[in-house]
Amino acid sequence: MANWMWYPDDFELYHAMLVHNRRERRGDYYSPMWRVDAPHRNVRLYKIVELEKSEEFFAKANEGTLLEIIVNGVRWQGPARITLQPGRNFIKLSAFKDGGLPAIWCEGEHFDSGNGWQLASFGMGDDPAGTNDMYDSPDDNPEVFKFSYKRLYPVSREEINDGVLFDFGREIMGKLVFSDIKSEGKKVPVFYGESREEALDTAYTEVTDVAVLSGKETLLRSRACRYVFLEDSCNDFSVAYDFEYLPIAPEGKFKCDDELVNKIWNISAYTLELNSREAFFDGIKRDRWIWSGDAYQSYFVNYYYACDLDIVRRTTMMLRGEGKMAQHINTIVDYTFYWIIAIWEYYYHTGDKAFIERVYKKMPEMWELVGSRLSEHGFIGGYTRKGDWTFIDWSTHLEKTEIISAEQMLLYRSYVAYAEILELLGKDGAEYRRKAVELKNNIDKYFWDDEKKAYIDSYQSGNRTVNRHANIFALLFGIANEKKRSLIIENVIRNDSVPPITTPYFEFFELDAMCEIGEFGYVTDMLHSYWGGMVKLGATTFWEEYFPNMKGAEHYAMYGKPYSKSLCHAWSASPIYLMGKYALGVRPTSAAYKTYEVVPNLMCFGKIEGSVPVPGGVVSVKVDKHNAEVTSDIGGGVLVLGDKRYDIKKGETLKVQI
Amino acid sequence: MANWMWYPDDFELYHAMLVHNRRERRGDYYSPMWRVDAPHRNVRLYKIVELEKSEEFFAKANEGTLLEIIVNGVRWQGPARITLQPGRNFIKLSAFKDGGLPAIWCEGEHFDSGNGWQLASFGMGDDPAGTNDMYDSPDDNPEVFKFSYKRLYPVSREEINDGVLFDFGREIMGKLVFSDIKSEGKKVPVFYGESREEALDTAYTEVTDVAVLSGKETLLRSRACRYVFLEDSCNDFSVAYDFEYLPIAPEGKFKCDDELVNKIWNISAYTLELNSREAFFDGIKRDRWIWSGDAYQSYFVNYYYACDLDIVRRTTMMLRGEGKMAQHINTIVDYTFYWIIAIWEYYYHTGDKAFIERVYKKMPEMWELVGSRLSEHGFIGGYTRKGDWTFIDWSTHLEKTEIISAEQMLLYRSYVAYAEILELLGKDGAEYRRKAVELKNNIDKYFWDDEKKAYIDSYQSGNRTVNRHANIFALLFGIANEKKRSLIIENVIRNDSVPPITTPYFEFFELDAMCEIGEFGYVTDMLHSYWGGMVKLGATTFWEEYFPNMKGAEHYAMYGKPYSKSLCHAWSASPIYLMGKYALGVRPTSAAYKTYEVVPNLMCFGKIEGSVPVPGGVVSVKVDKHNAEVTSDIGGGVLVLGDKRYDIKKGETLKVQI
Repeated sequence: MANWMWYPDDFELYHAMLVHNRRERRGDYYSPMWRVDAPHRNVRLYKIVELEKSEEFFAKANEGTLLEIIVNGVRWQGPARITLQPGRNFIKLSAFKDGGLPAIWCEGEHFDSGNGWQLASFGMGDDPAGTNDMYDSPDDNPEVFKFSYKRLYPVSREEINDGVLFDFGREIMGKLVFSDIKSEGKKVPVFYGESREEALDTAYTEVTDVAVLSGKETLLRSRACRYVFLEDSCNDFSVAYDFEYLPIAPEGKFKCDDELVNKIWNISAYTLELNSREAFFDGIKRDRWIWSGDAYQSYFVNYYYACDLDIVRRTTMMLRGEGKMAQHINTIVDYTFYWIIAIWEYYYHTGDKAFIERVYKKMPEMWELVGSRLSEHGFIGGYTRKGDWTFIDWSTHLEKTEIISAEQMLLYRSYVAYAEILELLGKDGAEYRRKAVELKNNIDKYFWDDEKKAYIDSYQSGNRTVNRHANIFALLFGIANEKKRSLIIENVIRNDSVPPITTPYFEFFELDAMCEIGEFGYVTDMLHSYWGGMVKLGATTFWEEYFPNMKGAEHYAMYGKPYSKSLCHAWSASPIYLMGKYALGVRPTSAAYKTYEVVPNLMCFGKIEGSVPVPGGVVSVKVDKHNAEVTSDIGGGVLVLGDKRYDIKKGETLKVQI
Repeated sequence: MANWMWYPDDFELYHAMLVHNRRERRGDYYSPMWRVDAPHRNVRLYKIVELEKSEEFFAKANEGTLLEIIVNGVRWQGPARITLQPGRNFIKLSAFKDGGLPAIWCEGEHFDSGNGWQLASFGMGDDPAGTNDMYDSPDDNPEVFKFSYKRLYPVSREEINDGVLFDFGREIMGKLVFSDIKSEGKKVPVFYGESREEALDTAYTEVTDVAVLSGKETLLRSRACRYVFLEDSCNDFSVAYDFEYLPIAPEGKFKCDDELVNKIWNISAYTLELNSREAFFDGIKRDRWIWSGDAYQSYFVNYYYACDLDIVRRTTMMLRGEGKMAQHINTIVDYTFYWIIAIWEYYYHTGDKAFIERVYKKMPEMWELVGSRLSEHGFIGGYTRKGDWTFIDWSTHLEKTEIISAEQMLLYRSYVAYAEILELLGKDGAEYRRKAVELKNNIDKYFWDDEKKAYIDSYQSGNRTVNRHANIFALLFGIANEKKRSLIIENVIRNDSVPPITTPYFEFFELDAMCEIGEFGYVTDMLHSYWGGMVKLGATTFWEEYFPNMKGAEHYAMYGKPYSKSLCHAWSASPIYLMGKYALGVRPTSAAYKTYEVVPNLMCFGKIEGSVPVPGGVVSVKVDKHNAEVTSDIGGGVLVLGDKRYDIKKGETLKVQI
């Protein structure tokens, strides 16, 4: 099998560039808030093979790319079909295109593209040519991201406000299609709405278009919506939608006897799917950008759902960009750390070492950036530095001085993750392990407050403010020792006077921690009230934010605009992760799922069943009040029921009475 | 006056990318031999002004570029005309284009483009927006290099070989034009020739095209030639040529009573002019690439001819590219040094400090590269390193071991030049002065041969070979002390047993040195025999190489191909430099022509006259056997006649009897 080839990592650079420059509002271009690196324009690849006998070789480039082929010093113009002679064959392929993504396709027994071709980098380092499994046909063009399409039709049509409102029944993404066109050249104003209100409130609709009808079918650019309002009588054409998606076959499944929770799980899955595109997006209507903190959560959900490895790889590379780092990822201090941590978590959940080797080459510059931002006591600074954004959460309670505890917790976790990566690659992790220990000691020294019995946000302000964020990180990242863990649970987690988490973004961490400490009641209450609240309002995907006390169209407002809230936001898909990891209870206990445990927990349910994708297969779990049943495609697993442990044998079904 | 703006230095990156990817042979793409860096795709510029009263602001981008305008936090879609309110106005312009060169044009009393706009670089450093004086009209597009055009017609038409041969009378560059087309859609095979032979020998012609006739006029791509052979009866169209050139008004002039030398001077000027394009090219037919060593010589010729500052700046930036250096410029060790030295020489001849400040930002990475290539005794290595090319000259006599003397001489000159640059910019040059001294000591210690009384090529080979190259550099770069200078002149320069210089490229250095040591007879002999030889063969521009003993079409062969030699090669234009510096004798004695001398020398001529461009005007010189006359637009000059010195007063004509 051959694959299209390009400059290593340029597929991601190119599509990230397009993605980050595609945001718009009411037709206006909305520029990215961070540096966007461009792909290379010149690519030279080479391969040397000693042939025993003559063979045919064919090479071509994609549309608009110039291609020079040099075989043993003899120059050919691409595309060309060349007979190679026995003996040493040294082939150089040089491509150029200004704009787009110069890419090369070859065929030949020993010289097919994607196999053993190397970048001739003019001294910039040795790398294999970039490829992607998606592009394995000579007819492909890697400039076009390879989505799948399915034609959908509106479930209702309503004549209103001198136009027609179409409802597609649920949030969708793709291209509005006009067919049966009887009015060539007609212009039709289009208003997309995630809500009915947004589509009809044409002066404020976020996403708009003007369709110019032409030919057999007219397809518009890809947009997300549930409703489409056309300011037209709609009598001389038909309307449909080409749903645009990544084809996946999710192995992650969950079902219980609580139909609302099943619905929540399914809507979470659909929410993630819509945001699974060139990379994991934040939301499918508005930014459609790649945010490292949002992506971090999507990765975990993905490990318990589709376990699509390439989208994690693509997202990671797209977030990184190229060359020297001069600002944090997405300009956010925490987002740099999530990027680092996620790389180790990727290996931990998937065992894909090849990708770690690839991305490792782009990690040292990230550490140079972090190093340039270190402040007193080895703490990461940032809030007061121009252009650095200390985010952590939207919470207004957080004290954001230059140095805050939550960022140090993330830095600690990053040190540990990087040490693991170094050791995985056969390098010395000792320096980063030492940095981690020193930092943990300083975190305890400067942020642990013996009176408050908790980590405070800042020692710089003198306010000794306690918030949940840093304390949740301290629980999740193994920073708090046993004694401190108990104190945190008592004085922060179970203390109603500490301001509650209110964003679905940080709920991911809070609920993760709650499960860790066994507060399953809190978690299932949140499922019912928070996610269940959106379901009751008719949500077909989960939202960027949800306040139970809001009414009607109030729900759709955000950032000072009536419909700016995203109603399909990836960070709200965490129930999949929580149910997989804590209800089905499947989780690795060592890297790459070499060992894992299944610790099922019925929580508030009468029975649960489902499966979790793992490297090399799935683990399926079925539990009710009397029986637990586990089937696994891989070895190394243990079923944990209370204080009892049962080995899970590969390929067999383990049944245990409770 | 406003100017188009872009990402700093991207105009040069963009056009260098196009130039280096434009080479072809018989229609086939010929890829660059070195890394070619791409321009940025996203540009964000900003400017802040406190306005006293309201004013109008207009901004637009070039074709195909998306433009977002943010005025005090309010977003506008470009192009837009906006009324700014009194008070602080903070304008951000964000542009994106994949392919081409995203560029922005603004109008407004305080916000016109090109004045005070700054790059928002996302932490990558502070730089003013890129601009170029050429692009000062809203109708410009900086993606199109701004050449001028003049229509030329063939001076003869000859029916031959079932086609027609057109002769344009001399080498030209530009677009072949078909007009009066009476055969729409006809395909006409086109064969360009720098020589008649090349145009007619259609199986071997280097540059070919197929014209598809269409419309009122059909213009082909820009090509260099003197002859065009069309394989067609040419009865149903007319042929012309749109000569493509940079408009210049050269202040450099020279005339003497030797008509052959006058002809040589004029042909040299025309040769340089044809190679003066986006940058200084090597030759106008074949590579049309930018080579640092070739450009170095063109700079010196330029200082004595057109003194076009921007082409030196453009060439310098285009040679540099972007980011980390991983290989030498053009992959050639010496060419890195010429780049460094030329920057100081640019300031020395022009006084343009602003450019030194600009290019200085891109010099440290060049020194990192050099540092990474240093070998024993602080010597630059290279020959044996993969991908590094020790060139110096085509001479086969040169001993190219890892470490050779000529490269060390260039390194020495680079250290000194860089120290000068540092000190000019108010920085400390001491480290580089120290490196220079240490290197000079080691050059003397390891390369000076007391028996040979000369610098040898290599101490590594044990052969103690003496060549002219290093010894010429030792004279030119102030490496040999007085005693060694005399020994070199005696034992190398005037020693016929040392292999002669045979390339016009190294003649530049040899003749410079010959003039320095007063061997004017050698120089005028070379003018008559070498350059004069080409003139006698009908050359309308000077060649890449010339061997007097060759005959007929033999002259056109090179690199194993019958017409691969360039008949218009910039490095053969050095007579302009030599006549200006040593016959008219005008040369700076301190940086920026703050002081200069005029040391006229009649050489073998009865009289000479001419002028040399200097910062702020020209210096004109007229000398015969009895009188010397100097007029200068600037102060600081001294006329030197033998051991007599006369102050040259600004604006007055100094007349001295000899």
